[in-house]
Amino acid sequence: MGPAVEKAERSAPNAVERLMALLAEDMAAVDAIIHHHMASPVGVIPNLAAHLIDAGGKRIRPLITLASARLLGGGGDGPRKLAAAVEFIHSATLLHDDVVDVSSMRRGKKSANTIWGNSSSVLVGDFLFARSFNLMVETGDLMVLDILARAASVIAEGEVMQLAAANDAETTRERYMQIVSAKTAALFAAAAKSGAVAAGRPGAEANALETYGRELGLAFQLVDDALDYGGVSAAMGKNTGDDFKEGKVTLPVVFARDAGDEAERAFWRRVVSETRSDDDFHRALALLKRHNAIERTLEAAREHSAKARQALIRLPANAYNEALTDIADFVVERAY
Amino acid sequence: MGPAVEKAERSAPNAVERLMALLAEDMAAVDAIIHHHMASPVGVIPNLAAHLIDAGGKRIRPLITLASARLLGGGGDGPRKLAAAVEFIHSATLLHDDVVDVSSMRRGKKSANTIWGNSSSVLVGDFLFARSFNLMVETGDLMVLDILARAASVIAEGEVMQLAAANDAETTRERYMQIVSAKTAALFAAAAKSGAVAAGRPGAEANALETYGRELGLAFQLVDDALDYGGVSAAMGKNTGDDFKEGKVTLPVVFARDAGDEAERAFWRRVVSETRSDDDFHRALALLKRHNAIERTLEAAREHSAKARQALIRLPANAYNEALTDIADFVVERAY
Repeated sequence: MGPAVEKAERSAPNAVERLMALLAEDMAAVDAIIHHHMASPVGVIPNLAAHLIDAGGKRIRPLITLASARLLGGGGDGPRKLAAAVEFIHSATLLHDDVVDVSSMRRGKKSANTIWGNSSSVLVGDFLFARSFNLMVETGDLMVLDILARAASVIAEGEVMQLAAANDAETTRERYMQIVSAKTAALFAAAAKSGAVAAGRPGAEANALETYGRELGLAFQLVDDALDYGGVSAAMGKNTGDDFKEGKVTLPVVFARDAGDEAERAFWRRVVSETRSDDDFHRALALLKRHNAIERTLEAAREHSAKARQALIRLPANAYNEALTDIADFVVERAY
Repeated sequence: MGPAVEKAERSAPNAVERLMALLAEDMAAVDAIIHHHMASPVGVIPNLAAHLIDAGGKRIRPLITLASARLLGGGGDGPRKLAAAVEFIHSATLLHDDVVDVSSMRRGKKSANTIWGNSSSVLVGDFLFARSFNLMVETGDLMVLDILARAASVIAEGEVMQLAAANDAETTRERYMQIVSAKTAALFAAAAKSGAVAAGRPGAEANALETYGRELGLAFQLVDDALDYGGVSAAMGKNTGDDFKEGKVTLPVVFARDAGDEAERAFWRRVVSETRSDDDFHRALALLKRHNAIERTLEAAREHSAKARQALIRLPANAYNEALTDIADFVVERAY
C-alpha cells in the first residue's frame, strides 16, 4: 500500500469516530459529567484521574451505552450519567489492572502507578468506582444499578481468574474464554443492556443489546490479543509483545501451542512460565505464523462479531443501529 | 489491679458483646448473608475473603446498622442485607489499606497481602466492594445506596489524604481530624444512618443516628490512636507502636509536638519523616507522657463520645438505644 492510500484511509473516519460524531452532543455532556464527578478537594484524585481519563481512550463503552439508549428512543440525562458511570468503572479497572500487571505505560503515556505510585492508583481507583455508583444512584434506576453492580463483581472475578492463570502454560481455550467473558465482555454487555434499560426497554430489547455487547466485547478482546502480536501484517506497534513479555497465554498462543509438536510445546511452556528473550519473541511469531494462529484468532473474533451484528437485526433500524453494526465490523477490521 | 479482679473484668461481657447478644439472631443471619455473597467459583476469592472476615473482627459497623434499624422498629431482612453490605465495604477497605500500608499483620494473623500477594488483595477488595452494592440493590432502597455510595467515595478521599499526609511531620490537628472524619467516621455515620433509613425513618431520626455514628467513629479512631501508644497504662499490646513505626502523625503526636520545645519538635520531625529506632519509640513515649498527650487525646475522644450519646437522647428509649449508649462509653473505656 502506497503512502498516499494509507493517508487517505487514515483520514476517513472509522466506525467509532462516526458514532462519536453522531453522539457529539451527548458525549460532550458525558465529558462534563465525568469531570464534575472526579472533582475532589484532595488534589491527587482529579490529577491522577485526569491523567488516565483525558489520555485519549476511545470511550467505546460509554458510546455503546448512549447508542443503545438512543437506538431505543431513550432521551434525557439518564443515559448520559449512566455512560459516565460505565467509563468510571472501566477507568477504576484500568488503574487497578496496571498495579496488578506492574504496567509502566498506558495509552502511550506513563501509567498512573508509575507517576503517583501503586497506593494512589489503588485508592483513586476505589474513588472512581464509588463515584460510578453515585452516578447510577442519580439516575434513580435500580435495575441499572443491579446490572452494573453484577458486572463489577464479575469483572473482579475475571481479573482474579486471570491472575491465577498467569504464567500457567496449560491454560485451555475454554478457560481463556471464561476469563475474557468476565474481565472484558461483562462490562460491554452491561454497558449496552443498561443503556436499553435507561431507555425504558428492559425486556427483549435489553437482552438483545446485552448479547450485542457481550459478543462485541469478546471480538474486541480477541482482536486485541491478535494485535499484541502485530495482527495479520505482523507490523509492530507500540504495544506489540506486551502479552508475550508478561508470559500471558492468549488465544493465539493456545492455538499455536495445541497445534505444535513436543519441542514447540516445550518452548511455550518455558516462555510462559519461566523466562523469555527478544529472540524468543521472534520464534513465537514464527510459530504463530506456522500454525495460522493469528488468522484463527481473528476467525473466532469474526464469529463473535457476526453474533453481535445478528443481535441488532430485530431492533429498530435507525442511525444508531447502523453505527453499532458498523462498530461490530470495525473491531475486527482494525486487525488488518 | 490484682490478677483476680482483672480476670473477673475480662469475663464480664462488654458493651459490644452485650449488643451482639441482643442481636444474636440478626447477626447469625448477617453471617449467613456474608458467606453466601462472598462465594465465587474462583477459589482465591472466598479463601482470601474468609481469611479476613472470619478472623474475629468485632463487626461493630454492622452491629450499629442493625441496632439503628431495630431501635426505630425496623424489621425484616433489609437491615440484615444492609449490615452485610457495610461489613463488605469495611473489609474491602481493610484489604486495600494493608496493601497501601504494606502491613504484614491484621487481627493478629498474617495479612491477606502477605499470604496471597498485593494483586489478589486489590482484586478481592474490588470484588467485595462490588458485592456490597449487589446487596444494597437487593434491599431495593435507593436512599440507602446513596448514603453508602457517598460514604465509599469519602472513605477513598480520606485514604488518599492520609497517604498524602504520610510522613509529613507538620500535619495539623485540623488536617488530622479531616482525615479521620473521612477514612473512619464516614462509614460509622453511614452505617447508622442507613439503618434508620432501612427502618423507614429517613428524617430527623436518621440524622440523629448519623451524628451518633460520626461522633462514635471519631471517638473510636482517637482511642485507637491512643492505644497504639499503649493507652493510659502504656501497656504494650500486640499492635503497639505500629503508627510510630510507619511514621504516622496521629493526635497524640500532634499534641506532644505542638507542646514541645525546639529539640522535641526536631525529634518528631526526624522520626516522622526520616528514620526511627526502638530507642526512639521509648523517647516518644516519654514525650507523650511529659505533655499528657495520651490523656488529651482521650479527652478529645470523650467529647466525641458524649456527643454520640447526646444524639440518642431524643430517640425511642429501648434496649437498642441503651446498648448504643453503652457502646459510646465503651469505646473510650477500652483505653484504660
